[in-house]
Amino acid sequence: MSRILIALLTLLALSNVQALEPFKPLPELPPIPRSNSQTPEKVALGKQLYFDSRVSFTGKQTCNTCHNLSLGGDDNRSLSTGALGIEGTRSAPTLWNVGFQTVYFWDGRAPSLEAAIGEHLLSSSEMGMPNEATLVGRINAIEGYRKQFEKVFPGKNSLGYDNVTKALASYIRTLVTPDGPFDQYLGGDKQAISRAALRGYNTYIETGCASCHFWVNFSGPVPGLAFQMGEGFYELFPNYIGTEYDEQYQLLSDLGRYLVTGDEGHRYMWRVQSLRNIAETAPYFHNGSVVTLEEAIRLMAKTQLRKELDVQQLSDIIAFLKTLSGRIPEVEAPILP
Amino acid sequence: MSRILIALLTLLALSNVQALEPFKPLPELPPIPRSNSQTPEKVALGKQLYFDSRVSFTGKQTCNTCHNLSLGGDDNRSLSTGALGIEGTRSAPTLWNVGFQTVYFWDGRAPSLEAAIGEHLLSSSEMGMPNEATLVGRINAIEGYRKQFEKVFPGKNSLGYDNVTKALASYIRTLVTPDGPFDQYLGGDKQAISRAALRGYNTYIETGCASCHFWVNFSGPVPGLAFQMGEGFYELFPNYIGTEYDEQYQLLSDLGRYLVTGDEGHRYMWRVQSLRNIAETAPYFHNGSVVTLEEAIRLMAKTQLRKELDVQQLSDIIAFLKTLSGRIPEVEAPILP
Repeated sequence: MSRILIALLTLLALSNVQALEPFKPLPELPPIPRSNSQTPEKVALGKQLYFDSRVSFTGKQTCNTCHNLSLGGDDNRSLSTGALGIEGTRSAPTLWNVGFQTVYFWDGRAPSLEAAIGEHLLSSSEMGMPNEATLVGRINAIEGYRKQFEKVFPGKNSLGYDNVTKALASYIRTLVTPDGPFDQYLGGDKQAISRAALRGYNTYIETGCASCHFWVNFSGPVPGLAFQMGEGFYELFPNYIGTEYDEQYQLLSDLGRYLVTGDEGHRYMWRVQSLRNIAETAPYFHNGSVVTLEEAIRLMAKTQLRKELDVQQLSDIIAFLKTLSGRIPEVEAPILP
Repeated sequence: MSRILIALLTLLALSNVQALEPFKPLPELPPIPRSNSQTPEKVALGKQLYFDSRVSFTGKQTCNTCHNLSLGGDDNRSLSTGALGIEGTRSAPTLWNVGFQTVYFWDGRAPSLEAAIGEHLLSSSEMGMPNEATLVGRINAIEGYRKQFEKVFPGKNSLGYDNVTKALASYIRTLVTPDGPFDQYLGGDKQAISRAALRGYNTYIETGCASCHFWVNFSGPVPGLAFQMGEGFYELFPNYIGTEYDEQYQLLSDLGRYLVTGDEGHRYMWRVQSLRNIAETAPYFHNGSVVTLEEAIRLMAKTQLRKELDVQQLSDIIAFLKTLSGRIPEVEAPILP
């Protein structure tokens, strides 16, 4: 039984009737883990850290440098260079709606947003901090931060590395883009999307895209529903090896989840990506090798579903995917301590 | 006759009675040059460019990197490193209220904000663009920008280098921090500043600080009043050479305006800096060598006025200078094309 089918059956087995719908409008907030409850003060602190370049070792980079909320939530680059000038090996994804993921990184190696952030801060190709103590010491030297951490995380060790990641995660969970045209359509406004988009929706279903890209975030199960946090929804990519795309876009040069687990079954396995705001987040795929949405769709149909889409189908699916672009909330630049 | 006296007499000679007041609340907007009228669309375009890293050669830096509106309008560093990794030789000043200047850069070498921006974009220690055409080509490749430039600057050559600097200047002129406690005090609210600040205000006048740091921006004449755009208000710094500070803070290693004009009379001449938001913009002076406001005041009294301030005087002047911190307007991150 294919993994896709198992996932769908799991969904169907849920007693909640709503769960039978393959898609669902985006809620205002993703599930909040009990270990990191959301308070306005914690979110505000996380937002400051998100936009503060002192969180990077060289002081030249913020979270927003690569996950740019002004630019669709990513940096529109294939690969990004970190604070130390070292280029990463995988494309920076958008952070809009990542709170709906159950695992993090392209290979799903982090079981929580907090764990993913903790790794980002220390990565030599990202924020470049040499160790946890350096980061904590840096923040501790800023009086305003010290006071805020004491308030947000009362008790001993209020300014610990874990709390830095918790504050950042709290802010990032607020990065949600609701009310896109397709969400409005799902909510009952049948005029919210064009006829082309509606055709594209049907083509999307018929082609089989929805087998993996379904549910709230168009990336399969969300935390607390069918999957728990830390459980990933993975697929082979490419599913059919041997197309011209393998070489053209170097699809076989990164072994994906195999690099995490060493399990042969995980060769070329990747976390299923969200399609929300996909029209704003080119270039595409783990290596950022595909520049246009059209080519990305053509490639996916071929490598995943062994199908060739004609020009009309492609154009319709693009029209549909564009309705997955949500309302980007206003982001007010924080005042830093 | 000293330059300071000349400047004061010039002010006194103005017929407008208001002009006799040495200080004045900050207006909502600085003077807008006729050659670059302000429109909401132009300001919005300039704001996008301000926050867009593609305006730097490496795509790693925005205007906001060094002139960080979340951090008092500067980057709290002595010297800043540009997009190419090259460090500049002078400290990045805050951009809040710079529209009230008559000349730009520490040495006043740019006669307008537009000219200053044009130089920043090409400087190897700032945005690092190799030439004007590269920047224009870069922006021209972004469809959204192309359309906006056509709308904001109709006619031929709508996307020219000059128009890039004009759009940026239009946005930067909106960066004004009105309604600080001292502005409220000047507006008639005598309770807006503390008794310590009031004592500090008197000490500031008696010590002689106001000889140079007066008027709207606490930096002497503003455009259109006594001085025209392009005319600079300069002072010797240090005025009295030979204090211990010369060596301690390397005050003599940068020749200031002399490097621009080659005129011996311009050795160690510098544009008089604004004191607005001074409490938020450490470290201080052209080389960013002085870390605390207290030490900066002590040094200025000694090197400029040959005076020693006691602990009470210093503390009072600090209290006064803190009332020059204005209300930082909300800055909403723009959506980039």
